[in-house]
Amino acid sequence: MRGRPRPAPPARPAEAGEQVEGRQAVRELLRAGRRRVRGLYLSAEAGEERGFGEGRGAGEGRGALAEIVDLARGRGIPVHRVGRAELAGRARTDAPQGVIALADPVPGAALEALTAVTPAGEAPFLVVLDGVTDPHNLGAVMRSALCAGATGLVLGRHRSASLTPAAVKAAAGAVEHLPVATVGGIPAALAALSAAGVWTVALDAGAATSLWDIAVAAEPVALVLGAEGRGVSRLVRQRCDTAVAVPLAGPLDSLNVSAAAALACFEVARRRATAR
Amino acid sequence: MRGRPRPAPPARPAEAGEQVEGRQAVRELLRAGRRRVRGLYLSAEAGEERGFGEGRGAGEGRGALAEIVDLARGRGIPVHRVGRAELAGRARTDAPQGVIALADPVPGAALEALTAVTPAGEAPFLVVLDGVTDPHNLGAVMRSALCAGATGLVLGRHRSASLTPAAVKAAAGAVEHLPVATVGGIPAALAALSAAGVWTVALDAGAATSLWDIAVAAEPVALVLGAEGRGVSRLVRQRCDTAVAVPLAGPLDSLNVSAAAALACFEVARRRATAR
Repeated sequence: MRGRPRPAPPARPAEAGEQVEGRQAVRELLRAGRRRVRGLYLSAEAGEERGFGEGRGAGEGRGALAEIVDLARGRGIPVHRVGRAELAGRARTDAPQGVIALADPVPGAALEALTAVTPAGEAPFLVVLDGVTDPHNLGAVMRSALCAGATGLVLGRHRSASLTPAAVKAAAGAVEHLPVATVGGIPAALAALSAAGVWTVALDAGAATSLWDIAVAAEPVALVLGAEGRGVSRLVRQRCDTAVAVPLAGPLDSLNVSAAAALACFEVARRRATAR
Repeated sequence: MRGRPRPAPPARPAEAGEQVEGRQAVRELLRAGRRRVRGLYLSAEAGEERGFGEGRGAGEGRGALAEIVDLARGRGIPVHRVGRAELAGRARTDAPQGVIALADPVPGAALEALTAVTPAGEAPFLVVLDGVTDPHNLGAVMRSALCAGATGLVLGRHRSASLTPAAVKAAAGAVEHLPVATVGGIPAALAALSAAGVWTVALDAGAATSLWDIAVAAEPVALVLGAEGRGVSRLVRQRCDTAVAVPLAGPLDSLNVSAAAALACFEVARRRATAR
């Protein structure tokens, strides 16, 4: 009971990326080397299947599997060659692409840590997801955000996708690099971000300002995206400093949330590049 | 054997969108009214499931289902209420969201038709997919392209995703509006597009020019995207007038093809808006 109270450690979300499937995700798990990998299951038929390696470069096909095996051997990770049926039985995604890894959970980040300037000197560039429930969308958002230079992700603990095998596969390795803070409530997290000097921008189809006119340069920023279909909730919209919309043509009402996230993240990236 | 030879009708691809699943896709099928709908299967439990309607606006939840039923009744389409197990048995996607429609195939378009100025006076704005095999990516590209104002899509007949139920669901109704030409070979199609005055631009991670510096305004344009992982093939790259890359930050090698497509399509949209 002495000294400063320590912040509670980030609670572990329902699923925390322990099962990693798919060539890009497993390769990046091993390349990054941040998590202990307990074992690797590899299809005994991998490489023999028709079309498995053909027509694909080193990034995806046989080359990626060879790199995975080399990395695993170099680090003393047990590699189990299993039949296609056993691999399919262990898989928790539709298409593990011949490889499944079991790893320690993805370590969570504290929200406060995401509001600091990064070790590389970058101002915070965060993505906040308000009720995105589709794990493919969560993974796709993580991949695009990291490729745009985002420095962290904020997820709600409830009514939100967590790092399921489908999300981890869709993230294609982004879970190894993009810090994720899981919070009890998005409105409270937005208040904390504002208090820390982070400018909060909601993506909202009803906003009067275009994403292309977003007034952001190199300052700390958080892009806030809502659930598939309904968008950000009213309370979350109220807590944000501003809102922007992607100008849409044609008859459809909305973009997929991962497409909107890609557009918004790369718009921030462009403005940061210009501001340098 | 008299008169001018008529062009062969576009060959029907392996799957042509007859089974439509998911609330957005089915609603747009009925709203658009371009295809005959033979019947609708609706989960008898739809609307009673926990969380089915809650927290979702009219765009996605109970409101969308009510609109679907109203539209179907108004057009005399048989609506079959079935149990969850039967609906799951009929479904060909992971999550039909309580509704499946059976419809006539999506009509194919001839490549030549896509090179003409549209009835709305828009110059062609096409997306060409070179060997994209994941139906979710195909559907996601169609949705983003239509929302950006694209006027057509070109798909290869072989080694490419077709309009499977998963693609149609991910397209969220875009298949009802975006004309699709299925061609025997992408290189020949690119030659035909060039001959018709369409400027062809490959998305290629190795390109020296940034997507943000793309020299395009209101002229006819085709964006050419390659397969997941390997990108456009060498021959396809050679046939294109130019190539651009999305500038990436961070440790990952590549964006998902549907994220790259969203960025490229909306860049064309922005430049067209500025050129007006």
